[in-house]
Amino acid sequence: MNPLSSPLLADLYQFTMLQSYLELGMEETAVFELFVRKLPPGRNFLVAAGLEQVLEFLENLRFSPGELDWLATRFPPHVIRYLEQFKFDGDVHAMPEGTIFFPNEPILRITAKMPQAQLVESRIINLLHFETLIASKAARSVLMAPDKLLVDFGMRRAHGAEAALLAARASYLAGFSGTATVLAGPLYDIPLFGTMAHSYIQAHADESAAFEHFSRCHPANTVLLIDTYDTEAAAHKVVALARKLAASNITIKGVRLDSGDLAVHAKNVRRILDDGGLRDTTIFASGNLDEYKLHALLSAQAPIDGFGIGTALDISIDAPALDCAYKLQEYAGKPRRKHSEGKATWPGRKQVYRTYGNDGCIAADVVALEDDDPQPGETLIQPMMHSGKRLHPKISLTTLRDQTLKNYRCLPAAMTALEPAPVYPVTISLALQALADQLDREHVQHDREIAG
Amino acid sequence: MNPLSSPLLADLYQFTMLQSYLELGMEETAVFELFVRKLPPGRNFLVAAGLEQVLEFLENLRFSPGELDWLATRFPPHVIRYLEQFKFDGDVHAMPEGTIFFPNEPILRITAKMPQAQLVESRIINLLHFETLIASKAARSVLMAPDKLLVDFGMRRAHGAEAALLAARASYLAGFSGTATVLAGPLYDIPLFGTMAHSYIQAHADESAAFEHFSRCHPANTVLLIDTYDTEAAAHKVVALARKLAASNITIKGVRLDSGDLAVHAKNVRRILDDGGLRDTTIFASGNLDEYKLHALLSAQAPIDGFGIGTALDISIDAPALDCAYKLQEYAGKPRRKHSEGKATWPGRKQVYRTYGNDGCIAADVVALEDDDPQPGETLIQPMMHSGKRLHPKISLTTLRDQTLKNYRCLPAAMTALEPAPVYPVTISLALQALADQLDREHVQHDREIAG
Repeated sequence: MNPLSSPLLADLYQFTMLQSYLELGMEETAVFELFVRKLPPGRNFLVAAGLEQVLEFLENLRFSPGELDWLATRFPPHVIRYLEQFKFDGDVHAMPEGTIFFPNEPILRITAKMPQAQLVESRIINLLHFETLIASKAARSVLMAPDKLLVDFGMRRAHGAEAALLAARASYLAGFSGTATVLAGPLYDIPLFGTMAHSYIQAHADESAAFEHFSRCHPANTVLLIDTYDTEAAAHKVVALARKLAASNITIKGVRLDSGDLAVHAKNVRRILDDGGLRDTTIFASGNLDEYKLHALLSAQAPIDGFGIGTALDISIDAPALDCAYKLQEYAGKPRRKHSEGKATWPGRKQVYRTYGNDGCIAADVVALEDDDPQPGETLIQPMMHSGKRLHPKISLTTLRDQTLKNYRCLPAAMTALEPAPVYPVTISLALQALADQLDREHVQHDREIAG
Repeated sequence: MNPLSSPLLADLYQFTMLQSYLELGMEETAVFELFVRKLPPGRNFLVAAGLEQVLEFLENLRFSPGELDWLATRFPPHVIRYLEQFKFDGDVHAMPEGTIFFPNEPILRITAKMPQAQLVESRIINLLHFETLIASKAARSVLMAPDKLLVDFGMRRAHGAEAALLAARASYLAGFSGTATVLAGPLYDIPLFGTMAHSYIQAHADESAAFEHFSRCHPANTVLLIDTYDTEAAAHKVVALARKLAASNITIKGVRLDSGDLAVHAKNVRRILDDGGLRDTTIFASGNLDEYKLHALLSAQAPIDGFGIGTALDISIDAPALDCAYKLQEYAGKPRRKHSEGKATWPGRKQVYRTYGNDGCIAADVVALEDDDPQPGETLIQPMMHSGKRLHPKISLTTLRDQTLKNYRCLPAAMTALEPAPVYPVTISLALQALADQLDREHVQHDREIAG
């Protein structure tokens, strides 16, 4: 059982419902859509991400002999026979990764036989929720510091290995420069960045010796961590070392600050480096950073060239979850609506239309029914998979990243700020509202007939 | 490359430092300890978890041909030759899983040759941080509702698949009854629980028909979701259905509420079920629950028998990260100390001693040097792995869970509450303080000599 691709990445009820669907012959086409109910505090928009991982999951969804053996201890033989043959042969429609989106807009639609469409629910949410969460968080730092080197430093406090890897991917897609997480290099072809740890300095009897050893080992790419003992004293040691290393044609590419008042230290260190002739040696900062601290450092004109952002990014610390749902919108050709208090859904298969202002910025979205409900504007939902087969070649992450950066250029200025922007207008089409009302009336009528 | 066991689950600097250590011949013994710097708001104690995953990671740490090929594009041949032979053959000391612990107390110590001890840093933190985070969060619900069925419902919004699986494990270890995440069953032997989704009800034309179909499919284990349309109306349907099913000897085990005012609905539904003769049919509640909502529901005497806790548990939503660190405390037989502002560490190999009061409750801890610094009390740090080999057979998760529940019985009452308790006394031994002072003096002296 591969824990990252197993079809047992599901809630138990998906299997108990599957059993019942099979026994009832309820294998008609179901349509589920995934959407976010509301923006978390501190977000003006969301960035769709994770579709590639969803498509890979669906393409490769098979039950292994070990998984079937385990299931056979809990489910009857007809269920196991069905699962032996199981593959996902439904359709996927979705917003491309990197699309800016808002609450109540579906970002993914699954159209498949009911047992299939239900079985994939939890893993699809799990993937799209997390990557969208991280891309949406990362976008804020990218918009705050568009000209700085931004590196994902979050692996150690990410929630497990997959979170670390997907956070590296989602943040790069959202415009980060790269990650420190090595495995994200071969897996996703993301640029890697790294410096040195305090332990390296501590393991040496002398800080200057540690700096020299590291520089001679990595002559092309030396970034020295200078806050282990006294930051400014260490900066002077870097200047002295640079003179010594010049004879060997080694230059010190940068220094890293990781504690204390970063703005003050950065200014002091910049002056020491400049006075020592190291104008090209960059200053990189880390240590519990997020977009708010970036903003404060940039406002204070701290001379910092790059930032390592860790915990706050990889767990989206100010909003570590999105209120999202994967809901049945149609079954056997009939639209469906959930009425639960505070959690009602918009029924039917939907499309999102987006119009732009004269300034090129996004102006308004309409959520409409896919059929017979045309609206002006760009359509955001596109066919991605048909009968279990991808419709497009895999897009490189760099291409997705470029497109995401282009999408940011269509954001109104207020939405790129850290402060709350005016609510972006997303309206529900008249036909969709009418359909919802009609389903509510039918439901009341049906209950009356039953009661009568 | 298996993304969950790959040695590339590391930060890039761990490899660049490794290269340098090899080139300098710095392969003496290093001692790193992992500790939490401070309690997050809303926690009175922490519960150690994740050691089993760390030991598995260390036992199986090998570089695959694919990983070596990739590394060879970035690192010189002598590094690749070293990594070809790489295995972890160091020692591990740790608190057993389920131990209650506090800031500044090491919960794990790695003693190994420097290149090894450094290479495993990020994945060790990644595993211990997350499981400890979740066990510490789960403990609060367990202490709040010790006699209730508590089920992990968090897979969909957990941060990736591994987070979902490890959250199921850590919450069960901390006293939860089980999880809805299927794969946690075969992987960790955790009891599985599940009900049904709104989509199952919606896919039927009629709610009563859906209830009947599901009950007949799962006669021994039916929990019906009754909030899709009108909760109290659905409860009446359940009563009517129970009468009909009695002829087939099928009983309805429970109902689930997932929206609205759960206390009000639970009381209404309990009355409807009782009036209908269904006194043994339990009420299970879910929907954005956490320990605070549990407390409110129990205080309101809501007649709820079990709770599904999802997002708040699996991402520890009020405190989604711990301020923890894995720091070098000794190298080549000499204690080391990091001095960075606000981030200084306690040097040397340490032991934690715990004393108990006459009431059997934990009373005070002392962090002391392991050698020649004896203190009264129980020693919390135990040898777990020697020369890369485990010292004890793997402990079953059920046994760990039983031990954790026993540990809770030694908590003073104030610490089991949701409100902040008085700070638990953790003192640093005089010998350890003296060692830290001595290292600080030596460091100043060394810098003076260099400067002179």
